[in-house]
Amino acid sequence: MRDAFHEQLEGINDRIVEMANLVEVAVEEATTALLEADARRAEQVITADIEIDRLQTLVEEQTFEQLALQQPVATDLRVLVGALRMTADLERMGDLAEHVAKITRLRYPEHAIPDDVKATIAEMGKVAKRMVHEIASCVAARDVEAAERLVGADDEMDGLRRSLFQEMLDPGWSHGVEAAVDIALLGRYYERIADHAVSMARRVIYLVTGEMPDHITSTPA
Amino acid sequence: MRDAFHEQLEGINDRIVEMANLVEVAVEEATTALLEADARRAEQVITADIEIDRLQTLVEEQTFEQLALQQPVATDLRVLVGALRMTADLERMGDLAEHVAKITRLRYPEHAIPDDVKATIAEMGKVAKRMVHEIASCVAARDVEAAERLVGADDEMDGLRRSLFQEMLDPGWSHGVEAAVDIALLGRYYERIADHAVSMARRVIYLVTGEMPDHITSTPA
Repeated sequence: MRDAFHEQLEGINDRIVEMANLVEVAVEEATTALLEADARRAEQVITADIEIDRLQTLVEEQTFEQLALQQPVATDLRVLVGALRMTADLERMGDLAEHVAKITRLRYPEHAIPDDVKATIAEMGKVAKRMVHEIASCVAARDVEAAERLVGADDEMDGLRRSLFQEMLDPGWSHGVEAAVDIALLGRYYERIADHAVSMARRVIYLVTGEMPDHITSTPA
Repeated sequence: MRDAFHEQLEGINDRIVEMANLVEVAVEEATTALLEADARRAEQVITADIEIDRLQTLVEEQTFEQLALQQPVATDLRVLVGALRMTADLERMGDLAEHVAKITRLRYPEHAIPDDVKATIAEMGKVAKRMVHEIASCVAARDVEAAERLVGADDEMDGLRRSLFQEMLDPGWSHGVEAAVDIALLGRYYERIADHAVSMARRVIYLVTGEMPDHITSTPA
């Protein structure tokens, strides 16, 4: 019985990694669509989010089933509750990528972002994609050291968001209020994707060590 | 044993309601601080968030304990897992109120928001506060009908956010980019508070009926 149970836990973990892989694609594609004002690509990101949501529902159902059928304690219980948390993070990350895509779609055929902030936005997209990629490996390998590195990694995103704001608040800013509003929200979306990756990393540390690194939820400074 | 267990469940539910009451105060106080550029009040909101986080950790620990000690199935299991979800929502709502307070603190002694958007922001704060108040009663009374009303209620917040954007994008907008960026983020924070209230309302419906009203997580359109 326990073996069948642990196979189930592995299956749930595989599905979380699968979700993370889809979120990584969503973040990368949404960023490319934004940078290239590619409405078709943006549309694909929006459609693809359905599969991320489907996986969350699936993991939630399987987790419930295991909580009800087995009597998990200690680590097994942490794994199942952690699965609920991590899929909730990933579902949000998918939504945030979708929000980026929706801004692209909303402004099409115009570019949502002017050329002078493209480099910063591109970098935010790169950092977010990398963090999602790393959290997928952390979850797959239960890698605490990698998770600890990831917990420290969102300083980079915060720095990028600060420079994005400096660019908008520069007296020389010539792109008006609408672009600034879009960019402020885009910056927020990328920052939140990073926050959720950090929240998942804390969760992985908790799963393995049983200790929550400070406050477990994703709270931007 | 089961009676002691259900007393525990009641205690967890009481603590969720307690969290919701603190979040309601945070939303109201953060809005007042913003409208009056009251840095002291904003500071109190930021400090008070510690208690909301403390309650979340407490509920999480108690929920774990009950999941481990008892073998909850069906409704009891839904209640415990729902408690984890709802406290996560409330913790975020507290953070969002804190973000509003931090914008007030950042711009002090200046006003973060110009007079001509104050009415809309005040209304957003009022709607957010009301939704938090209503979700507290839904949770306390397991009131499905009230929860269903709440699921429909965030159209009002979406409408307010749209008018906020119209005000900023009006050619007559004279308050520059910095104010617009602050307001865009403030609008987002209030919208997210409403989203989390709706997510909790869906969770209440699920707890009572065992059926998830469409997609359970809080996904803004």
